[in-house]
Amino acid sequence: MSEGMGLSKIKRMNFKARKRRAAALAKKAGVDSLLVTHLPDVRYLSGFTGSNAALMLAGGKSVLFTDGRYTAQAKTEAMGTRVVIANKPAVTAACEWMVEAGVKRSGFDAIHTTVAALESMRKAVPAKLRRSLFVAVEPLVEGLRQVKDEDEIAKVRAAAKLGCQLFDGMLEYLRPGLTEMEVAATLEHRARLAGAEAMSFETIVASGERSALPHGRASSQKLPKRGFVTLDFGVVLDGYMSDMTRTVHLGKAQPEERDVYDAVLEAQEAAVQAVVPGVTAGEVDEAARSVLRKVELDPWFTHSTGHGVGLEIHEGPRLAAKQTQRLEPGMVVTIEPGVYMPGRFGLRIEDMVLVTAAAREVLTPSVKAWVEL
Amino acid sequence: MSEGMGLSKIKRMNFKARKRRAAALAKKAGVDSLLVTHLPDVRYLSGFTGSNAALMLAGGKSVLFTDGRYTAQAKTEAMGTRVVIANKPAVTAACEWMVEAGVKRSGFDAIHTTVAALESMRKAVPAKLRRSLFVAVEPLVEGLRQVKDEDEIAKVRAAAKLGCQLFDGMLEYLRPGLTEMEVAATLEHRARLAGAEAMSFETIVASGERSALPHGRASSQKLPKRGFVTLDFGVVLDGYMSDMTRTVHLGKAQPEERDVYDAVLEAQEAAVQAVVPGVTAGEVDEAARSVLRKVELDPWFTHSTGHGVGLEIHEGPRLAAKQTQRLEPGMVVTIEPGVYMPGRFGLRIEDMVLVTAAAREVLTPSVKAWVEL
Repeated sequence: MSEGMGLSKIKRMNFKARKRRAAALAKKAGVDSLLVTHLPDVRYLSGFTGSNAALMLAGGKSVLFTDGRYTAQAKTEAMGTRVVIANKPAVTAACEWMVEAGVKRSGFDAIHTTVAALESMRKAVPAKLRRSLFVAVEPLVEGLRQVKDEDEIAKVRAAAKLGCQLFDGMLEYLRPGLTEMEVAATLEHRARLAGAEAMSFETIVASGERSALPHGRASSQKLPKRGFVTLDFGVVLDGYMSDMTRTVHLGKAQPEERDVYDAVLEAQEAAVQAVVPGVTAGEVDEAARSVLRKVELDPWFTHSTGHGVGLEIHEGPRLAAKQTQRLEPGMVVTIEPGVYMPGRFGLRIEDMVLVTAAAREVLTPSVKAWVEL
Repeated sequence: MSEGMGLSKIKRMNFKARKRRAAALAKKAGVDSLLVTHLPDVRYLSGFTGSNAALMLAGGKSVLFTDGRYTAQAKTEAMGTRVVIANKPAVTAACEWMVEAGVKRSGFDAIHTTVAALESMRKAVPAKLRRSLFVAVEPLVEGLRQVKDEDEIAKVRAAAKLGCQLFDGMLEYLRPGLTEMEVAATLEHRARLAGAEAMSFETIVASGERSALPHGRASSQKLPKRGFVTLDFGVVLDGYMSDMTRTVHLGKAQPEERDVYDAVLEAQEAAVQAVVPGVTAGEVDEAARSVLRKVELDPWFTHSTGHGVGLEIHEGPRLAAKQTQRLEPGMVVTIEPGVYMPGRFGLRIEDMVLVTAAAREVLTPSVKAWVEL
């Protein structure tokens, strides 16, 4: 950051660059403007965090539509974007603006627009424009969001760091007899006190036999004297999310438990090492899966290896079998293989990994080696 | 409950009745079957709580489509509904089933179906059926969900009761110098320990000047020595949500603060009293608004009076100006007028109210009279 360039200026430049990239993608998709209504996309492009918004990118301009509750907030947050306070649904106001501005073909994101919303968009414009004005396009902005800029990486890094601090603190706290709910409650309480805006998703605490559930919400079950405890959780800081999983063992383990742990850890580390610019998402998945295949545990690895994380907990890229998308510097992905043996036990180990120009950086350095408490 | 009739039997009868009512509404809407994909609707009709599901109601039958993660859970939860485990998207499996079953016109909920989802539904069926098979209908199941049955009322009541217990506990705890975040963290921690599955929405703690923000998320601001603190929160118990707001005053109040409080309380109580079967939603809204109008505070009451609550935090009916929908026994609505004076102070008081055959029952009996801590 050069001297005299305040944070606001930097931020405004980020948003400007993002909007420019989105407009270029829209042009490539054959439309002259883009209507953005998915809220994480609106936030990404404009900085606005309110719950009612539509953003138009057209002819090098950007206009944010929202309502009177957000007059002050929109002007502060959406720097470099014109703000229109509408006394009608934001998307209706955006459609009327399009007609006045002479927009011919506006892209909209078919993944995040409901059939009813499209109907109301069409009703907001003259009959002769109804068929031609709105063009379904891929989720272009979600595509852009996969590659984080420096400002975003700093935020994801901060969220991941807080996640690790919280996990490290849990190692002192976990003990047989606590309910899974108590564990989740304590973790979430500490997260809040440390400044988390929210948890990224419902905290998973799965112990004993329940560790075999890939997504075991914390229950009233007590942590066992002997058995695995899987913690999978994340925090939100300044809109950006973390996501990490660690599995520890309470009491003395059976040899088989230890063997399975070692195999999952080896698979996880192999997939982390596979993360380099240019690798395909499928190759990273295969790096984890092939380790488990060698020891015949692959049938119990029943989900994909990972996903992108940022303003949403599940974003692109998707690290799953046969995915041909290539990783690029600036992507932040989870690497989270697991093995689940119904009625017996299971475990998962998950890091967040930033793809760098050189290779990768693990954002969640909490201990992964075998822990027996 | 007659002797010997277990809870499972009762539940199955509830689901059967709900499915029968939904099928009747579908028939009235001119379709011979209904494709249900909105997850709260699937849960309401079948009991299934998984995150991937599509439910078909056709020819007196009901079929639930989900994936292999939910094999055991679907069979346990979706009593009386046939379960199909698909190795493709649930909605695709449902569409293919429709074709085989000879369904001619299937309703789908345009509010909860995206343009992309409709496109993939069309791709899953033969070309000749693409235009005719899928018929956009109103959110019929959401309509049904407005009127709760006894099983649901018991659950909403339990959630509301826990909310009140938590609020009562906060009266002992609130004091100047705590940050809003600490207050939220403590409330949420206690909620978890008391068995809440989650909070219904992001807890609102808005103190001092921030009390003038209708939806002030808990911030790092400290509770003031003198000023209002608004708590607006809810818990989820067995899928059903609570929602309540109380505003208390720390330290000695200015006479104007007390006057505004009294006016909001009078407005709130007038609207509660207005809740009877047959009244329109708009009349209930007007009951609150007219009290504030008399003392010229209505311009600062910038939102609607309330909304339904159940499996979702915002459901029908909508208690807003000019709404002509009539309240019916079994509806559960919030009554939550507020006054917000930007840069100065604000407050809101909110109860959950069950419409009964006789009149109403307030489900959130925590103190509403002026509290100075």
